[in-house]
Amino acid sequence: MEELLSDRIKQTPPSFIRAILKTAADPEIISFAGGLPNPISFPKEELLESMGRIVKTYGSKCFQYSITAGLPELREYIAQRYNKKFNLNLDFENVLITTGSQQALDLIGKVFLNENDNVLLEKPSYLGAIQAFSQYGPKFHQIELTKDGMNIEQLKEALKNKPKLIYLIPDFQNPTGLSYTQKARDEIYEVLKDRNIVLIEDDPYGDLRFEGVRLPYIGAGKLKNSILLGTFSKTVTPGMRIGYIISENKEILKNISISKEASDLHSNIFTQYLIWDYLTHNDIEEHISKITELYRTQATSMLNAIEKYFPKNVSHTTPHGGMFLWVTLPDGVSSVKMFPKALEKKIVYVPGDPFYVGLHDVNAMRLNYTNADSDTIEEGIKRLGQLLDETISA
Amino acid sequence: MEELLSDRIKQTPPSFIRAILKTAADPEIISFAGGLPNPISFPKEELLESMGRIVKTYGSKCFQYSITAGLPELREYIAQRYNKKFNLNLDFENVLITTGSQQALDLIGKVFLNENDNVLLEKPSYLGAIQAFSQYGPKFHQIELTKDGMNIEQLKEALKNKPKLIYLIPDFQNPTGLSYTQKARDEIYEVLKDRNIVLIEDDPYGDLRFEGVRLPYIGAGKLKNSILLGTFSKTVTPGMRIGYIISENKEILKNISISKEASDLHSNIFTQYLIWDYLTHNDIEEHISKITELYRTQATSMLNAIEKYFPKNVSHTTPHGGMFLWVTLPDGVSSVKMFPKALEKKIVYVPGDPFYVGLHDVNAMRLNYTNADSDTIEEGIKRLGQLLDETISA
Repeated sequence: MEELLSDRIKQTPPSFIRAILKTAADPEIISFAGGLPNPISFPKEELLESMGRIVKTYGSKCFQYSITAGLPELREYIAQRYNKKFNLNLDFENVLITTGSQQALDLIGKVFLNENDNVLLEKPSYLGAIQAFSQYGPKFHQIELTKDGMNIEQLKEALKNKPKLIYLIPDFQNPTGLSYTQKARDEIYEVLKDRNIVLIEDDPYGDLRFEGVRLPYIGAGKLKNSILLGTFSKTVTPGMRIGYIISENKEILKNISISKEASDLHSNIFTQYLIWDYLTHNDIEEHISKITELYRTQATSMLNAIEKYFPKNVSHTTPHGGMFLWVTLPDGVSSVKMFPKALEKKIVYVPGDPFYVGLHDVNAMRLNYTNADSDTIEEGIKRLGQLLDETISA
Repeated sequence: MEELLSDRIKQTPPSFIRAILKTAADPEIISFAGGLPNPISFPKEELLESMGRIVKTYGSKCFQYSITAGLPELREYIAQRYNKKFNLNLDFENVLITTGSQQALDLIGKVFLNENDNVLLEKPSYLGAIQAFSQYGPKFHQIELTKDGMNIEQLKEALKNKPKLIYLIPDFQNPTGLSYTQKARDEIYEVLKDRNIVLIEDDPYGDLRFEGVRLPYIGAGKLKNSILLGTFSKTVTPGMRIGYIISENKEILKNISISKEASDLHSNIFTQYLIWDYLTHNDIEEHISKITELYRTQATSMLNAIEKYFPKNVSHTTPHGGMFLWVTLPDGVSSVKMFPKALEKKIVYVPGDPFYVGLHDVNAMRLNYTNADSDTIEEGIKRLGQLLDETISA
């Protein structure tokens, strides 16, 4: 078998997270590992109502083959929402629907990357992006995240390799929960603006802000090779796999569309009608504010519990939105090596390793706070605190 | 922009068909070009009923992230249906759900193909497979289809190149509508059985047989590197993009699963619950027999009209099922060159070219009969007959 496989598949890392999710089926395990939205974000009754309405109104069109770029009405809705929020100048032709944001990452890899092309990522970066791009055999360069943004000197240095892509998550970054300040955004823009590079701003969490104000994107509306990624996974439903790519560069979208056609023809058209109908018959901003309020409470519970139960030489980020925070352990403490003991205590997290390319035994972990209630969060952090006490003092 | 694109995307052909579908928005155009199932195949009311039931029964699970391989209940249902029909020995672990069959083709390309690997295809072959595999830069070798199957001597010759994959559509082939006889299947099996090659049998149309009896697969249940592709696109709904990969080789499925995870995490889980619920609460075999009866009528209308209106030096296949037939024009008559005149007469078809690798001005065309009523089919064939008369005598 082995000799029949592509080099590509041999270099694609399987997801640590999904492996964890499989082993963590034990109901007594408290999981901070997944990136699962709280089910409060699924407007079940409203979606059911929309299903009846679209079948009645659009009939067979909801069930037939459809166009690759996606339902024009949904794309126009997305364009207008971004125009309003970010003062952009988009229409439906600037938007392409994908089978979740993960497909957007895969298509971008497909369209741009030859083997050994250079790709810039944050350090740490989203493991799903590392997986998707890895399939196309690039060389990754990771640039240190700071509390306010990114190490600009490292960025300038890395740009000397003439990378094709730079992939950033400017708000409530996965895995760290950090966001770029306006100053950091301006600096990155200045460094990138005269270069021939594609900037991907992945923004699955931007709507989920519970503190501070939303800032403009770095590239969208300004850089000619700018791509913006969005999704309904965190605000309507992840299970239906509807994400989208926004770009003002139609040449980029044309090529992504060719690649998408070869990859799955088009995304589920029933679901596209459904989400469009839901969005136009309900107050999505009110719905999002309910989700955000819940996540604020959950984040606060986790932060309070961390203050109470974690050793003082363990530090953490304080997210202003999104779903994750990032915990840094003292030097030399491997969160992977701790993992079996965490399982014994029936608590799981994602070790730092999969968010880095080629690093092992990283002294950090990602914690998700959106999918457990405050009592469970406190109990989980208490268990983790005990484990950290035992590990660090050992 | 150009210099930022991958070699891969430059070698991926955009679909002629989808380009046609776009230009053919004129309601006066009669289209035999698409591969659209008749809307009779969409059980709209029954699906709506299932939607209510699954939301009530499974709640948030229908909307949350889910596992990459797909809903175990649906996979088990598929396994049992194939066991019953084909005397196989499958369980849910032999089945992986994909975002339509097109994704299956893309994932197979990803998992197996390095640049310049050899791939065997029928001549002509499904253009979507050519597109999907093209992304991975293989060398294609096409093996002549015959009325009964395939040119075995050509197959033996092509195998000397040690191809990794051979891709076949044994029943109601796309584009020709031809099927392999039992003898042809046995011969192909004998030639492949001791070789280290992956056999892909793509079977989207097998259920749509309106004449003769269904024959066993060539490789499924017998060859160790056998992959079978199926879909609900032709029997329930194409718009919801649910296909599947069946293999008894779990190593193959494991690698495809890693690749799928990096490509779209998982397919729409709501739709998986939906189709599973629909299948277990309705008589799918009766539903399929309704579709098949309709397609028999439509195929007969087209064949009768062809007898009546086409010049005698134009030949055609006589499908026993599926959605297409294949028309061969006299040598030297290009169906691509005829196309602008066909548009003037408001009739469209798919020219032969995209079903071949590297051939141009092919003297053949694919006609679809499933998406127009008998009167429309007669009128369309009449127009096409006039065009053929004019072109051939010219």
